[in-house]
Amino acid sequence: MLKNTATLPWQERPENSSDVVWRYSGNPIIKRDAIPSSNSIFNSAVVPFKDGYAGVFRCDNKAVQMNIFAGFSTDGLHWNIDHDPIDFQAGNTDMIHSDYKYDPRVTFIEDRYWITWCNGYHGPTIGIGYTFDFKEFFQCENAFLPFNRNGVLLPEKIDGRYAMLSRPSDNGHTPFGDIYISYSPDMKYWGEHRCVMKATPFEDSAWQCTKIGAGSVPIAINEGWLMFYHGVINTCNGFRYAMGAAILDKEQPDKVKYRTQPYLMTPETPYECVGDVPNVIFPCASLHSMEEDKVAIYYGAADTVTGIAFGRISEIVKFTMENSL
Amino acid sequence: MLKNTATLPWQERPENSSDVVWRYSGNPIIKRDAIPSSNSIFNSAVVPFKDGYAGVFRCDNKAVQMNIFAGFSTDGLHWNIDHDPIDFQAGNTDMIHSDYKYDPRVTFIEDRYWITWCNGYHGPTIGIGYTFDFKEFFQCENAFLPFNRNGVLLPEKIDGRYAMLSRPSDNGHTPFGDIYISYSPDMKYWGEHRCVMKATPFEDSAWQCTKIGAGSVPIAINEGWLMFYHGVINTCNGFRYAMGAAILDKEQPDKVKYRTQPYLMTPETPYECVGDVPNVIFPCASLHSMEEDKVAIYYGAADTVTGIAFGRISEIVKFTMENSL
Amino acid sequence: MLKNTATLPWQERPENSSDVVWRYSGNPIIKRDAIPSSNSIFNSAVVPFKDGYAGVFRCDNKAVQMNIFAGFSTDGLHWNIDHDPIDFQAGNTDMIHSDYKYDPRVTFIEDRYWITWCNGYHGPTIGIGYTFDFKEFFQCENAFLPFNRNGVLLPEKIDGRYAMLSRPSDNGHTPFGDIYISYSPDMKYWGEHRCVMKATPFEDSAWQCTKIGAGSVPIAINEGWLMFYHGVINTCNGFRYAMGAAILDKEQPDKVKYRTQPYLMTPETPYECVGDVPNVIFPCASLHSMEEDKVAIYYGAADTVTGIAFGRISEIVKFTMENSL
Amino acid sequence: MLKNTATLPWQERPENSSDVVWRYSGNPIIKRDAIPSSNSIFNSAVVPFKDGYAGVFRCDNKAVQMNIFAGFSTDGLHWNIDHDPIDFQAGNTDMIHSDYKYDPRVTFIEDRYWITWCNGYHGPTIGIGYTFDFKEFFQCENAFLPFNRNGVLLPEKIDGRYAMLSRPSDNGHTPFGDIYISYSPDMKYWGEHRCVMKATPFEDSAWQCTKIGAGSVPIAINEGWLMFYHGVINTCNGFRYAMGAAILDKEQPDKVKYRTQPYLMTPETPYECVGDVPNVIFPCASLHSMEEDKVAIYYGAADTVTGIAFGRISEIVKFTMENSL
Amino acid sequence: MLKNTATLPWQERPENSSDVVWRYSGNPIIKRDAIPSSNSIFNSAVVPFKDGYAGVFRCDNKAVQMNIFAGFSTDGLHWNIDHDPIDFQAGNTDMIHSDYKYDPRVTFIEDRYWITWCNGYHGPTIGIGYTFDFKEFFQCENAFLPFNRNGVLLPEKIDGRYAMLSRPSDNGHTPFGDIYISYSPDMKYWGEHRCVMKATPFEDSAWQCTKIGAGSVPIAINEGWLMFYHGVINTCNGFRYAMGAAILDKEQPDKVKYRTQPYLMTPETPYECVGDVPNVIFPCASLHSMEEDKVAIYYGAADTVTGIAFGRISEIVKFTMENSL
Amino acid sequence: MLKNTATLPWQERPENSSDVVWRYSGNPIIKRDAIPSSNSIFNSAVVPFKDGYAGVFRCDNKAVQMNIFAGFSTDGLHWNIDHDPIDFQAGNTDMIHSDYKYDPRVTFIEDRYWITWCNGYHGPTIGIGYTFDFKEFFQCENAFLPFNRNGVLLPEKIDGRYAMLSRPSDNGHTPFGDIYISYSPDMKYWGEHRCVMKATPFEDSAWQCTKIGAGSVPIAINEGWLMFYHGVINTCNGFRYAMGAAILDKEQPDKVKYRTQPYLMTPETPYECVGDVPNVIFPCASLHSMEEDKVAIYYGAADTVTGIAFGRISEIVKFTMENSL
Repeated sequence: MLKNTATLPWQERPENSSDVVWRYSGNPIIKRDAIPSSNSIFNSAVVPFKDGYAGVFRCDNKAVQMNIFAGFSTDGLHWNIDHDPIDFQAGNTDMIHSDYKYDPRVTFIEDRYWITWCNGYHGPTIGIGYTFDFKEFFQCENAFLPFNRNGVLLPEKIDGRYAMLSRPSDNGHTPFGDIYISYSPDMKYWGEHRCVMKATPFEDSAWQCTKIGAGSVPIAINEGWLMFYHGVINTCNGFRYAMGAAILDKEQPDKVKYRTQPYLMTPETPYECVGDVPNVIFPCASLHSMEEDKVAIYYGAADTVTGIAFGRISEIVKFTMENSL
Repeated sequence: MLKNTATLPWQERPENSSDVVWRYSGNPIIKRDAIPSSNSIFNSAVVPFKDGYAGVFRCDNKAVQMNIFAGFSTDGLHWNIDHDPIDFQAGNTDMIHSDYKYDPRVTFIEDRYWITWCNGYHGPTIGIGYTFDFKEFFQCENAFLPFNRNGVLLPEKIDGRYAMLSRPSDNGHTPFGDIYISYSPDMKYWGEHRCVMKATPFEDSAWQCTKIGAGSVPIAINEGWLMFYHGVINTCNGFRYAMGAAILDKEQPDKVKYRTQPYLMTPETPYECVGDVPNVIFPCASLHSMEEDKVAIYYGAADTVTGIAFGRISEIVKFTMENSL
Repeated sequence: MLKNTATLPWQERPENSSDVVWRYSGNPIIKRDAIPSSNSIFNSAVVPFKDGYAGVFRCDNKAVQMNIFAGFSTDGLHWNIDHDPIDFQAGNTDMIHSDYKYDPRVTFIEDRYWITWCNGYHGPTIGIGYTFDFKEFFQCENAFLPFNRNGVLLPEKIDGRYAMLSRPSDNGHTPFGDIYISYSPDMKYWGEHRCVMKATPFEDSAWQCTKIGAGSVPIAINEGWLMFYHGVINTCNGFRYAMGAAILDKEQPDKVKYRTQPYLMTPETPYECVGDVPNVIFPCASLHSMEEDKVAIYYGAADTVTGIAFGRISEIVKFTMENSL
Repeated sequence: MLKNTATLPWQERPENSSDVVWRYSGNPIIKRDAIPSSNSIFNSAVVPFKDGYAGVFRCDNKAVQMNIFAGFSTDGLHWNIDHDPIDFQAGNTDMIHSDYKYDPRVTFIEDRYWITWCNGYHGPTIGIGYTFDFKEFFQCENAFLPFNRNGVLLPEKIDGRYAMLSRPSDNGHTPFGDIYISYSPDMKYWGEHRCVMKATPFEDSAWQCTKIGAGSVPIAINEGWLMFYHGVINTCNGFRYAMGAAILDKEQPDKVKYRTQPYLMTPETPYECVGDVPNVIFPCASLHSMEEDKVAIYYGAADTVTGIAFGRISEIVKFTMENSL
Repeated sequence: MLKNTATLPWQERPENSSDVVWRYSGNPIIKRDAIPSSNSIFNSAVVPFKDGYAGVFRCDNKAVQMNIFAGFSTDGLHWNIDHDPIDFQAGNTDMIHSDYKYDPRVTFIEDRYWITWCNGYHGPTIGIGYTFDFKEFFQCENAFLPFNRNGVLLPEKIDGRYAMLSRPSDNGHTPFGDIYISYSPDMKYWGEHRCVMKATPFEDSAWQCTKIGAGSVPIAINEGWLMFYHGVINTCNGFRYAMGAAILDKEQPDKVKYRTQPYLMTPETPYECVGDVPNVIFPCASLHSMEEDKVAIYYGAADTVTGIAFGRISEIVKFTMENSL
Repeated sequence: MLKNTATLPWQERPENSSDVVWRYSGNPIIKRDAIPSSNSIFNSAVVPFKDGYAGVFRCDNKAVQMNIFAGFSTDGLHWNIDHDPIDFQAGNTDMIHSDYKYDPRVTFIEDRYWITWCNGYHGPTIGIGYTFDFKEFFQCENAFLPFNRNGVLLPEKIDGRYAMLSRPSDNGHTPFGDIYISYSPDMKYWGEHRCVMKATPFEDSAWQCTKIGAGSVPIAINEGWLMFYHGVINTCNGFRYAMGAAILDKEQPDKVKYRTQPYLMTPETPYECVGDVPNVIFPCASLHSMEEDKVAIYYGAADTVTGIAFGRISEIVKFTMENSL
């Protein structure tokens, strides 16, 4: 992660709570109508940028068309989101048509901010772009064939190659889904695909028994890569999305070292349980400080608004190791 | 529309709002238990009548049997609904058996109030009836073969024939549906069926990409027929119903001149998002005054209660023309 | 039926058979490639015409596009089918566009031959046309809203109105289906829809428990209207289509007087069990002579070829009455 | 029912209410996090025990694994639930493996408390266990082959045999389900299976048209066995669970004497409409006093928390008899 | 097995064949119309009886109603099947109503011939009956709650109890299915249900990866119980049924000692691949002679006719042990 | 294509035929039991090799496990297939585990024979391997993430990169499917994915309206790349697979220049219509001689056996250009 001097968004754990991860009392931090055209703003990504933070936001408009928008904040809690969607220029390809863009992630690698998102090209696949300044954006070749969602880049190269987590899917409300990893020497050609982690047997951990998907950009910790991910259970009244954590091996990130059997957070508040799609917690980004032992997790709530939750990295790692599947 | 001297229900746009259509602050105006037997009262229709208003209301009873009831109001906001369902007499047929009746619309044409509804005859089809006085009701032949829903009559004849919008469906939670128009010389035999408007491609306007259905009785305006309709998106947690507007050609109402790409209203309030069927806005009627440039739209909320929303006709028309698909 | 002097196609019952209806030993009488462009020729209709017979044939071409073609025969067994599909002119409407045409039936009423078929207009519905001479053809308004199949006209008016049997359906491989009747004063507007007969409970008659559809044009007999129809069972390996007979009331044809609990014919021969759609017998027409007590039934086999079967009308009526559901 | 000296939980009917059954104003009485490990506590059973009450509670943990826990209360409203699940010893079998346990019921018969639950053995079936003291628990043979749910024992033997209501199902979100009764001489072998009551036709009582299941342990009344049960309707946004009452014949409990066409209670409050599975009322137990003419019904709400409702037995019986299907 | 003096049906292995099980060259031995009323005769059971053989046959009539009929043979190849279905008297219950009966098996135990079949009681379950003489038949209580199919009794008691294999299912074309065993002291009450064998992973043995079901009555051999069973794969064109063999432990028949990874026989002949349900081999019975090392397996083919196949018991056992999953 | 001196398999067009492609009269050339272990041999690939031909064959064994086998022929009609499946060594990866292998294609590029197949790695994806001599085989990284089928390499590099056609799918009997192309500099990393051709609207060409997939290795012709592909229609009795031809642009093979609206061949013969999966023609390879203007197309029939068909290249090209969609 880039160094920056901004204060990490933070709020201490509520007194009566023993939760490993706890919600910000000011949630939702971004409401559905935070820009004039928006129906909903959720499943969005933030990174340290200059003296504060920048982000790429999923804003569905009132025609319920999906697109991604840049935004900026000094404290990570109050955001100014552009009123127009990101206008990509040609990156490593001229083929930059998108039917839609949603669920962005942002990762700084080497010299630039890489953005991945679910890109509409004859169905959902993983779009890739980059920016140096959050003003000019460049779109690259799609990473994979359709159908795919939840593409998340590791923040460092592995053996000299970019590494991307993703979740092969189908073209609808996919009732299955496991996390894979793929590698690329050049952000154009991808290969060496490996299965990383799968949905669980119902008996073992039902909240993640239907499908799972990578969430936030993994954080380098001593034990490996710490990743927040979402898991889904198919109830008789639809899908419910909760959040867990996994620790992947540092050198061989297709090896899962630990993975929470319990969830870290499940829909409980009105803004998570009621909205365009009820009962959804969907993490897409986090900000952290290893020195302060803090992490702030950004998540979409009910496919409508954006919330933030906090935790101590050391506690989360301990919890993940001690409650691993 | 009949002239009447009653005051149109109205409330000015909230100060901080720029919405084209806005909700009444006293919503829901009719609660689920407004009559002793009712489980829910929603998807109902009103018209000017005498010095006030009359209506036909869908009241599901506590066995969740669907039927329609007459009701009366002086101000359009407070309603007295009969405790017994409408008891139809034979109109142009003796075959007036119904397994159930729901989602009524009411239209005054020439000399009487015509009522259309979803009628249970070996599955849902379009029932037709009429009344002169909201005391005696007469039931006619069903307009179409099963399966059909959302039959809405135009308030004037076209080329000397009655014109009805409808939405062919199947016998369950239909996952498709387009609006058609049909004509009749006599309210008994129907033909010259034309497709009017279809569900949209997901990329163009996702809130109406699964199915659409005619809502309120179209209003004659200079530009044609102004109709509020519902559109449905199939989320991973079920259907979400929102409301849009369309303007049909005056002489050839199977021609769509304009149609909102954005919705006018989507479920956002607790009474729209929580209830027997969450996330439903379902317009079935409107009252308007061209002179005052006002319209009051009645809609079912969450298949449980009835709400009302307001707008300026000129603004709605402008919005529809400027934001047309 | 028109009088004509042609010999009815006929073959006596095989010696060892006690079947009420038996197959022609020369089946299939029309092979899949009987015209150069055809992939298959089946589900087709014939009538007496001049000194022989004329017919309207479903010929799917090698792109598997469906269309209907005129054809002629002197003996009802050997057919010359036009190499080009029927080119309709405007009848009682200018809206004669079809996405596809299939499963025709032909009926002579008063002064002309009426043709009904499954017509592609935003999905399947019932197309109507007529001809006086099988050279010039005129297309009328579709009878019903989509979705509908198996429209069959009665050969006489009922109370001065045309009467049409049909089978409301959906837009795919419909897993349900009952037979209705509708009336029209003018072949343009249709109403007074009544349910005639429904698919049966599995326990009572499984071969017709999934859906049923009118087949041949009903024959006026003393007991009412004799109709051959198809019934479908949904096996674990797909639909199986068999043929039964029903006798409808002469004056009130929505009343079923008798209906065969056993089938009359089920797929047994190679040309019925193997083909583009295995296990299909689909009757669409019959020729008969009351004087000779004979009927020849034309049916599509395996959605690929056309067969013919024979029976004694008196025996079929007796069997239907004695084996009625 | 055992005599005990504890006060029955009770609250009088609200002044403005005419409901036959009314909610406790302090609902939910057990919250989702009442024990440290729990995600949700619902669909649970209570009985009089010593000077107060004991119960068996479904507590899903934060891995959303299902298990049952013992708990105790002096007033039936405030509960101390064990932090560890029940640890069963071998009863009439050594095969006491369970993949999961949920939806318990408890019944005192003769000398002990019998517990039945949905037991995971290659899918859901009916588990049986017993305790004398709510300290030591013994597990018996599963009653039936998979797949089955909602096993409820009658509190008295019928003709010297134990009698169990159950609901055969499939291995998923079963879209069908009727109540059966089976008998056993010894709690090991079961037979003489009879269908008791079925889901209703949609037209007759839609809230129970998809499936039904036995709820609380039946109460012996003069008229027979009074049972609270759940009924399910499949809306376009998922299943909705409501509660009704039935009276079974005392000697032949497969005969239904009366059964409510209207529901007694349907999801209306936030804790019933919003939660892990929205719109669920699921009764599993009741406490009653014939002398005081009172019953307190325990029910799971939204698959998340536990609520309680009250009624007068005589009124419920009268209502059931007067509003019977 | 009873001793009888009849010759076992037999034909030597074809010269060019190395198959473990081979077809009779005269197949099908029973054609679809072997009795006047029959549409099809298949999935039927035979046993030694007096100087020859008796059997219980599934004959679907021409209304495709399913029932079972007695039949007799001197050589096991030529059969006289009664023209009327078996008329059961009350056995251990008066509740002997059946909506339908199909797929019978017959087993001699102690003093009588027990018949099990799929019995229609609110859906399919396992019916039980017995006869001493194939003239008088007595029907008992259904063994299990619905839904169940393929109930097969072991020919000897296990620990003094009757033992029945069965296959829990649903009410349609069940896409899953494993074999269980249950025990009864008295043919009335059943318990101690155990899972015996499950459908296989696709990668291990695809022909039995969708569902499996017990077939013929197990034969006592030195190694345990030899059972022929059917396995099903769900292809893109429907289910395909093939036959395998398993050897169960003699004392603990829920333990599978060996089970063929390859099938023994798969649909290959026209009468197995073409018919009412294509691609079905469904074994329901066998006759054998340990002395002659012969077994004759009876199986339904394409749900239309009955075939017979032969093998050497010692070879089948060796093959099963050497090719076991 | 490599030069070789073997005679191309060939048979002249039957006298009475005007088909562009015609079947070999000796079909099927490879029967289901051509090797001792095989249940079926189909969907296989051949190339010129030394003085004759070599091939890679899909042989499902009698456990219906899928694997690929090498085989050799001098005339292309009579084949000796190895009795053991290909034993791959590590190529450009050590991760050469396969759950199954099926539907191989073989292409000679530069210095070796490349094999692609559907490879089981957490579901179907595209496996890649190579051989120089059909004795030693080397397996490489899978080309794509699951789920994918029908990977076919172009026989020449495009802009210095390998080019592969493929068909993204799901993990079952995929009811959708379009052809894409991807590029690789090194047979390890793949990118620049483009959609090539899609399933057609039902009205335009129903035989290919459900899904399509690349078949044989494209042949370089003057007009571009000539490819035989399969198209699928979903009938009420399952999928039917037929064969068409397409001509892709030589330099930009994601551009389709021509594509047959009619099929070239559809299941008509018993070995295509009856078998393990009825009604399948599935081309996987072709041999051709530009000088002799001949092509021999190898195709799987009914997922059971292998057939061969012949045509004149010039005629096929002309037909494709003149009958293009």
